[in-house]
Amino acid sequence: MRELEEKIAREGKVLPGNVLKVGSFLNQQIDTAFTMRMGEEVKRLFEGREITKVLTVEASGIAFAFAVSVSLGVPMVFAKKHASANVSGDLYTASVYSYTHKTSYEIVVSKDYISSEDKLLLVDDFLANGNALKGMIEIANQAGAEVVGCSSAIEKGYQGGGDELRARGYKVESLAIVESMENGLVFRTQK
Amino acid sequence: MRELEEKIAREGKVLPGNVLKVGSFLNQQIDTAFTMRMGEEVKRLFEGREITKVLTVEASGIAFAFAVSVSLGVPMVFAKKHASANVSGDLYTASVYSYTHKTSYEIVVSKDYISSEDKLLLVDDFLANGNALKGMIEIANQAGAEVVGCSSAIEKGYQGGGDELRARGYKVESLAIVESMENGLVFRTQK
Repeated sequence: MRELEEKIAREGKVLPGNVLKVGSFLNQQIDTAFTMRMGEEVKRLFEGREITKVLTVEASGIAFAFAVSVSLGVPMVFAKKHASANVSGDLYTASVYSYTHKTSYEIVVSKDYISSEDKLLLVDDFLANGNALKGMIEIANQAGAEVVGCSSAIEKGYQGGGDELRARGYKVESLAIVESMENGLVFRTQK
Repeated sequence: MRELEEKIAREGKVLPGNVLKVGSFLNQQIDTAFTMRMGEEVKRLFEGREITKVLTVEASGIAFAFAVSVSLGVPMVFAKKHASANVSGDLYTASVYSYTHKTSYEIVVSKDYISSEDKLLLVDDFLANGNALKGMIEIANQAGAEVVGCSSAIEKGYQGGGDELRARGYKVESLAIVESMENGLVFRTQK
């Protein structure tokens, strides 16, 4: 999505440790009108596929998943990172290793909200090693739900998670794929 | 907002400990088309007031704040509950006591995203004791930003936080105010 690539180039900041900071429009501060256009683009990329729900992980995935959900006209569900007083009853759980925080955490979805009838689009703001998506795939499998595909706003192509999932047969659509950041941002050419 | 009251009555569950569970449409699973209509209602309630940004706290506030932000045509900012690798530089911080979890936590916003020029609408999904809103007011004060008002989707009127803020002079608009849950849901009559 050309508009997203231009926005990353203009407003993104590359921090030490290969951290791409897009807090000014995608994470912490959110340009919601632009995010709604990203949601429309995801709808276009999955045109013709039946999707019953959008699944993401709190917290930074929620805004993008919300926009995707509005464009598709289906509910969204977000996995919580820990059980709380408001998530009770039977749960699906999966373990996710975070490279950012160097720890594993559990993601949790109440069994009330995903069933074997569901056809899920798995959504996250960033796709790097793909661990959050793998956790969501694990939850979809526990529910017996179909994974229609995965979509991220920004994929770090050089970290390999997206291509690994593509090699496993998943349709993975990212709106911008960063191939390298060392000498200025380079994006993968997409159709 | 009549539609929200009806949805709470139809889909909400009252759990032991006076917990109102609305996970089927507001929290965990989100009816985004309905949430967009809630955003339009908040716009109506603050008609004629200048607002430059919507501020909320992750994670459950993000969806409602997103919809409010779209309806107002201004960016949203969400406070994080802890500093992370992606929140760097100078920070505004405030301490919030959670009655749900019986602990205090820090909320954090990068100074890049709120300034003394801002006129903030503070938004959250639930308003009970008002502690999250008070934390956001503290952050607005640190930034020298104006607090135009506060809005929640569901206020628990009997916990007093909303009325305390109204008594302090803040315009607080909640789309549904639950007065009691003991013998069936009773809502406060609003204009």
